[in-house]
Amino acid sequence: MSVSSSVPFIGVGQMSALVNRTGVEAFVLGLVDYLETDYARWTTFEKSPRYATHSLEGVIELMPINDEVNFGFKYVNGHPKNMKDGLQTVVAFGVLSDVGTGYPIMVSEMTLLTALRTAAMSAMVAKHLAPANATALALIGNGAQSEFQALAFKAVLDIGTVRLYDVDPAATQKCMANLQHRGLEIIACRSAEEAVQGAQIITTCTADKKNATILTDNMVGSGVHINAIGGDCPGKTEIHADILRRADIFVEYAPQTRIEGDIQQLDDNHPVTEFWEVLSGAAPGRVGGEQTTLFDCVGFAIEDFSALRFVYDRLASMQDVPRLDLLADPPDPRNLFGMTQSDALPVNLEKAG
Amino acid sequence: MSVSSSVPFIGVGQMSALVNRTGVEAFVLGLVDYLETDYARWTTFEKSPRYATHSLEGVIELMPINDEVNFGFKYVNGHPKNMKDGLQTVVAFGVLSDVGTGYPIMVSEMTLLTALRTAAMSAMVAKHLAPANATALALIGNGAQSEFQALAFKAVLDIGTVRLYDVDPAATQKCMANLQHRGLEIIACRSAEEAVQGAQIITTCTADKKNATILTDNMVGSGVHINAIGGDCPGKTEIHADILRRADIFVEYAPQTRIEGDIQQLDDNHPVTEFWEVLSGAAPGRVGGEQTTLFDCVGFAIEDFSALRFVYDRLASMQDVPRLDLLADPPDPRNLFGMTQSDALPVNLEKAG
Repeated sequence: MSVSSSVPFIGVGQMSALVNRTGVEAFVLGLVDYLETDYARWTTFEKSPRYATHSLEGVIELMPINDEVNFGFKYVNGHPKNMKDGLQTVVAFGVLSDVGTGYPIMVSEMTLLTALRTAAMSAMVAKHLAPANATALALIGNGAQSEFQALAFKAVLDIGTVRLYDVDPAATQKCMANLQHRGLEIIACRSAEEAVQGAQIITTCTADKKNATILTDNMVGSGVHINAIGGDCPGKTEIHADILRRADIFVEYAPQTRIEGDIQQLDDNHPVTEFWEVLSGAAPGRVGGEQTTLFDCVGFAIEDFSALRFVYDRLASMQDVPRLDLLADPPDPRNLFGMTQSDALPVNLEKAG
Repeated sequence: MSVSSSVPFIGVGQMSALVNRTGVEAFVLGLVDYLETDYARWTTFEKSPRYATHSLEGVIELMPINDEVNFGFKYVNGHPKNMKDGLQTVVAFGVLSDVGTGYPIMVSEMTLLTALRTAAMSAMVAKHLAPANATALALIGNGAQSEFQALAFKAVLDIGTVRLYDVDPAATQKCMANLQHRGLEIIACRSAEEAVQGAQIITTCTADKKNATILTDNMVGSGVHINAIGGDCPGKTEIHADILRRADIFVEYAPQTRIEGDIQQLDDNHPVTEFWEVLSGAAPGRVGGEQTTLFDCVGFAIEDFSALRFVYDRLASMQDVPRLDLLADPPDPRNLFGMTQSDALPVNLEKAG
C-alpha cells in the first residue's frame, strides 16, 4: 500500500473501461471472491448501521467500515424522482484509506461499482441459499440493476433462463436488448405473477420509495429463494409480510436491516440469520427443498469495502489513472501555513503512467 | 446550484492559490460571516455526532450535516505519530451535495480549509466571549494551526500581541518566522506559565493523543477566555478539570463535545451552553469582567459546511477548476449497463474555463 498526498482517482470512464475490458461476468466472479473473503472474516470488521439523512425526495447515506488495515466508505443517494429528470436514482462514490496513517489511498466512482457489487452479493448469497440446480431467475424491476443481476446469476449459478417483468414495458425492452447474445433465454412477462412461474430464484429490484407489494403470499411457492433488494430504506418495502413470516430470512447486518429492510414490517425480535454465519458454518443455509429462503438485502458497507479493495488491487493494471492533489503535504508538516503563502500556480492533477 | 455528472474539484493547489490571492485574514473574515450565518440558523440543520473509528495510532472520522438545500460531509483523520514520518497529523477533504437530487456538487481538499475554519470559529466565538478590549493572545502549541489562530484573532478581535509556547522550540521558531511583518508583536516564551502572563485569551492547540494538562488551575487568572481546541477526542484532553469546574463552558454541539471535548473529564450533566444559544440571544455570553469563559472546541460539522459553502460561492471566480467524472450519467438513466459495454476511451477529467 502506498501512502501519498496525491490520490489515484477512478472516474466513470476508468471504471467503464475496466469493466468492459474485464467483462461483466468475470468482474462479478472476481467481486464474489472478495465478498466471500471479507464476509468470512466478518468479526474482524468495525461495523455500524449506515448514516442516512432523509428528505422529501430521497436519501443521502454514508457507509463507513474498517478492519485493522483499511478504512472505506461510500457516499450514496437514493432519489427515485431523479429518473424523470434524466438523472440516476442512485449515484455513488467511495474512498479507501490506510488506517495506519489516516491517508486516503484511492477515490473511486461507485455508481457502476455498486451495481456490480450488488449483483455479485446477490449471486454469492444465492449460491449458498438457492435450491440446488436452479435454472430460472425471475427479475421483477428491470431498471439499472437488472442486467447485472441476470449476468451475475448466470456467472455464479449457471442460470439459463431469465423471466423479466417491469411495470414499464420499455424497461423490460431495454433489459432484453442488453441481454441479447449472452447465452441466456430471456422471457418478457406481462405480470409479476407470470414472471415467477417456474423460477427457483426471484429477484425483486424495484425503486419506488414507498411500501409496495411486489410479491404477495399466493405468488410464491415453496422451495424458492427470494433475493429482495429493492426494499432498502424506512418506508420502502417490496415483500408482503406473510411471505416474510413463512420464509427463513437471511440478512447482511441485522441492526441495519431491521431499520431499512423488508423486515421493518416485522417485530424487532423476529428471528433472522446474518449471512456471515452461514459462510462460517455457525448457522445453516438451505436445509431442504421445500424451504423458502429470503435474502433481505439492503446493501452493507462491507460489500463496498470488498469492491474498493478489488478495484484497488487492479490499479497497477490500469492505464493513465489520474491522481488528485487531495491532501496538503508541506515539506515541514507543521508548516501548513506556508502553503497559503506561495505564489505557485496550482498543480491540480498529475497523470500517472 | 448546478447539478451535473462531472463535479468541480478544489485540490490543494487550487485552495492554496485561493487563500493566497484572498489573503489569510480576509479569508478568515469571510468564513466568520458564513459561520455566523449558519450558527444563527442552527435549528434548521439535521445534526449528529460525527462517526469516528479509533485505531491504535489515530482516528478517522466522517462529519455529515445538512439543511434542506445542501448536504455536506468531511473526511478527517487525526494521527499524531504521522509527524515523525513527515506526514500531516490531520488531513481532510469534503464534499458538498444537493439535497434535492443527492448529487455531489463540489469535492474539495479540506486540510488547509479546516485549519482556516477552525481559526475562524475560534475567533468568531471569542468575539462574543472574550473580555472587552482583549489585546494579547497566548498560543500554546505552535504547530500547523498556530499561525491561522494568530491571524484570525488579529483580523476579528484586533489582537496586537501573541505569546507563543511549544514544548518544541523549533515549532515556535517556525511560527514566529511565519508571523513576521504581519503587524503583530510576537513573543516567544519558555513555558506555558510565561505565555499566559498578561494574555486575556488563551488558545491551547496541542496534538498529543493523550490526557495532557496544558493548563493547570493556578496558571489561569479570572477574566480570561480560554479557547481549548486540542482536546478533541476520547482520551485526548488539555485542560485541568479544576479550570473546567470554575469556568463557564461553551460548546458547539453538546452530544459530541461530551464524548470528545475536555468536558469528557466532567459529569455528563455538567452545565454547558451551546454557542448557537449565545448567538440567538437565548443564553448569555460573557456577563462580567471576572468571569472565566472556556470554549471547548472539538470541531463540528456545521463549520465544515459553512467553509464548503464559502468556497463553493467562490468557484465562479476561480481559474481552471477541473471537474471529476465522478458520477455515471448514461443517456438513459436506466441503462447503466450500457456504460460497461462501450469501447470508448475513458474521459477522466475535463478542464472548465
